[in-house]
Amino acid sequence: MKIGVIGTGSVSKAISGKLAELAHEVTVGARSADSESLEAFAGIDGITTGSFADAAAAGELLFSVVAGDHTIEALEMAGEDALAGKTVIDTSNRLDTSREFALRSTASVDNSTAIQIQERFPEAHIVKSLNTMTNSVMIDPSTVPGDHVVFVSGEDAGAKDQTKLILAEFGWRDAQIVDLGGIASAAAPEMLMPLWMNLVIARGGFDAGPFNFAVNSA
Amino acid sequence: MKIGVIGTGSVSKAISGKLAELAHEVTVGARSADSESLEAFAGIDGITTGSFADAAAAGELLFSVVAGDHTIEALEMAGEDALAGKTVIDTSNRLDTSREFALRSTASVDNSTAIQIQERFPEAHIVKSLNTMTNSVMIDPSTVPGDHVVFVSGEDAGAKDQTKLILAEFGWRDAQIVDLGGIASAAAPEMLMPLWMNLVIARGGFDAGPFNFAVNSA
Repeated sequence: MKIGVIGTGSVSKAISGKLAELAHEVTVGARSADSESLEAFAGIDGITTGSFADAAAAGELLFSVVAGDHTIEALEMAGEDALAGKTVIDTSNRLDTSREFALRSTASVDNSTAIQIQERFPEAHIVKSLNTMTNSVMIDPSTVPGDHVVFVSGEDAGAKDQTKLILAEFGWRDAQIVDLGGIASAAAPEMLMPLWMNLVIARGGFDAGPFNFAVNSA
Repeated sequence: MKIGVIGTGSVSKAISGKLAELAHEVTVGARSADSESLEAFAGIDGITTGSFADAAAAGELLFSVVAGDHTIEALEMAGEDALAGKTVIDTSNRLDTSREFALRSTASVDNSTAIQIQERFPEAHIVKSLNTMTNSVMIDPSTVPGDHVVFVSGEDAGAKDQTKLILAEFGWRDAQIVDLGGIASAAAPEMLMPLWMNLVIARGGFDAGPFNFAVNSA
């Protein structure tokens, strides 16, 4: 499948690399096609680089992996027409870099990237997913034991099904994929970020190894 | 132990009843000592009823189980002097009853009951706990399988130890009690409420049975 990845940070590196491994044709987009941030993707089999607009145009399905506060701007640069009718998987979190680590999330039911981009780009099919865990777990859930979960929120059933297929290719089992409902539910996993950050600290930092949230029931 | 419970709602009924079963001397407090809301507690062995101030004065340890938006007012009625030096376990969530069910939380890193009451009552030892699950699981964690968790946040190590002992009496095993750190970390479990509400809906309502969050790691 042709997949565009909007953004070049650590989440992009993990997801773009995994998608290429899975033999998808990946275009990674940066603010400009000659951005230094694209150097990390040069020469990787299956990955082409370009601008946000190049990635959006090339992809039949898109990942938006830009930081939450910059997502709308990046998708505007990608081009509203290029997003129309496409599944856009948003993995972002709202972070306030003026705060200390444990408190940097600005998420609330009134400040959700996914809700805001769905409102701004009504013709795109926004799906919130993968924002509640570290990069390595996103693309290899087997590194954490048990039925830990990945959440999926979005208005379009077909777009959520496409997302679930990609998640399955990443290694997520059906029992681990929790459909939370429409895009309004996307605020909930975004509001998990402070708990995730506090757990990183409480566990003694990233060296303690990966973890993920689970939902246990009888 | 003499324990005061500030509040008379469903959380109070669950916790006060369990504490009385465990042979603690419980005083349940309402806005006034002749409040109709206290009738549900009449005649229960081990439970005395009274005003917020009566409960705060009687308890060596206090539970604050009032709705988040009313906690400061209730604790002011309980009396700042009666709280001083005592462990106050806050189980509340921030809910905006003008919103639909799934979106009712107003929690954010800037709107945490526990942080606000610790600031308002600096001599009390506020501990956030138990706000991330349904009442029945709070007092009987064995109804959900596996190492699902209860979070504890607070500044005072002794107050957190007291809280952990009460949690152990409720049936929580050491592996299930996650100390998130100081009171600043209390915003994180409060921000879990929207996810909890969306999961109730996604699972098909309360009839689907109890569930709780877990943190899986290798």
